[in-house]
Amino acid sequence: MFDKNNLIYKSVKVKAPASVANMVCGFDVLGMALSAPYDEMELTITANPGIVIKHVDAYNLPTVATQNVAGVSLLTMINALGVDVGFEVVINKIIKPGSGLGSSAASAAGVVVAANYLLNNYFDKQALVGFAMHGEQLASGVMHADNITPCIYGGITLIRATHPLDIVTLPSPALYVTIIHPQIEIKTADARQILRKEVQLQAAIKQWGNVGGLVAGLFKNDYGLISRSLQDVIVEPVRSMLIPAFDLIKQASINAGALGGGISGSGPSIFMLSITHDVAQLVEKQMCAIYDKLGIAYHSHVTTINNDGVKIIME
Amino acid sequence: MFDKNNLIYKSVKVKAPASVANMVCGFDVLGMALSAPYDEMELTITANPGIVIKHVDAYNLPTVATQNVAGVSLLTMINALGVDVGFEVVINKIIKPGSGLGSSAASAAGVVVAANYLLNNYFDKQALVGFAMHGEQLASGVMHADNITPCIYGGITLIRATHPLDIVTLPSPALYVTIIHPQIEIKTADARQILRKEVQLQAAIKQWGNVGGLVAGLFKNDYGLISRSLQDVIVEPVRSMLIPAFDLIKQASINAGALGGGISGSGPSIFMLSITHDVAQLVEKQMCAIYDKLGIAYHSHVTTINNDGVKIIME
Repeated sequence: MFDKNNLIYKSVKVKAPASVANMVCGFDVLGMALSAPYDEMELTITANPGIVIKHVDAYNLPTVATQNVAGVSLLTMINALGVDVGFEVVINKIIKPGSGLGSSAASAAGVVVAANYLLNNYFDKQALVGFAMHGEQLASGVMHADNITPCIYGGITLIRATHPLDIVTLPSPALYVTIIHPQIEIKTADARQILRKEVQLQAAIKQWGNVGGLVAGLFKNDYGLISRSLQDVIVEPVRSMLIPAFDLIKQASINAGALGGGISGSGPSIFMLSITHDVAQLVEKQMCAIYDKLGIAYHSHVTTINNDGVKIIME
Repeated sequence: MFDKNNLIYKSVKVKAPASVANMVCGFDVLGMALSAPYDEMELTITANPGIVIKHVDAYNLPTVATQNVAGVSLLTMINALGVDVGFEVVINKIIKPGSGLGSSAASAAGVVVAANYLLNNYFDKQALVGFAMHGEQLASGVMHADNITPCIYGGITLIRATHPLDIVTLPSPALYVTIIHPQIEIKTADARQILRKEVQLQAAIKQWGNVGGLVAGLFKNDYGLISRSLQDVIVEPVRSMLIPAFDLIKQASINAGALGGGISGSGPSIFMLSITHDVAQLVEKQMCAIYDKLGIAYHSHVTTINNDGVKIIME
């Protein structure tokens, strides 16, 4: 039983990272945490029950706990704790909602890791994923875990199954990640709706061959195998139509030396993996040149795979 | 260029092992070589071109090279060699054709490994798989590599892609394999025909989650993860209907302590993996009891994963 009179810290500040879900062939199962961008969240535990949420960013997200991703995650957690505690949450959201970079997952994962820290790490990581999934459900209507899990565990993770949750941590190689985010909006729900409910068995076989190859490539640290396995024959051919110049961006990235990549989450962001920082920067340059030429507004950056996940930065 | 005046050995004898293709979730991509049963093959290189095949078993298989799995594999190999050499092949087939244990693959893989040995290992293993695939095509109409590859490389292998061939070797744990072979016939071509050409996306996602989990489990040597990942939601529910009492056999095996298993190849053999020899024997006992009760004839045995593949036993 949790004892609320035995707390060490009253307040904590965390960095909650962006993440890439639906990693190419690993639709709905493979995800990866990024070193940047990240949200900053500050949590204070209070004697009085109740959740107070304050935003210090420009996104005007809901502050009522039951309508807020972080709030819902926290409420689920307090419920599991069985002891009435309250929290004040201050969120500085940097990861743009709707970018495909796991903005809602960062809120959900960040708040439960921070709260757990204040609760003397009463829960294990898998339990935290379970709480944060309720936040994701509020955001997208689906209780998916493929952004939250890398956010909480760090690195690259596999969700082998959701019911019951089976999390597999994978080795994450020292790769660079180039991200480009065209400034258009794709709703996760819409991106789901355009997918066919049935797929060709032959395509599915190719896909699970690639999932097996990618997982093996990560364990073997075999960049050639990783590169060859970064192929999605099922989801990308459909969803890429929602993203301006996707095929051009991808081809230019491969030509510039990227190992491969694809749609981040349900888009519109595109990510590419590269072995060196120089190549990752060249990939960024090529991507930007295409959107510049087409007059499409975008944000872009080069980052790395984040092996820490949500990180405590100040107690 | 190959020099046929520079040969070290004139004759060689090999053991060509049985194998399990379509390893549960890994339909068409994951295969495993077995320590038993195995065919014995003896090859002699001859000055005169031409292939002479002799069988010393009861199966009455074709002896004309173009109609024989080993013959076709060997012809493809000689053709790639570009130098006219001849072979005499003596085959003692132990692996029953149509058992689902890779009988044709053993012939195809055995003969090319043996011939390559006599040719001073002129070709690499991947080239040998390519030659043997022509033998498989003769046997089943499909140029599949998921029996041949573990036969040639040993252990557990992933065929990430077939065109071009991309072979990934996986770690193989020290597990015991129980095999039961009900004495009925299922033609590979028939077993392919009853599969639906389209599958539910949700089922495919489960399948590739399991493939990822199984591959990760092999690298981590995590038996719990291997066990949870040994689930086939796409092929087994359809094909298992062709195998008498499949569900009973499987459930009894799991109850006896098996990690999991499924249909071997396109059946009718069933395989189960266990951590200890005792459990593998108990699984065998439970399986046999079911077929005994139903009056179904069968062969059964307990073996291990074969890490060597085709093995030279006498020069």
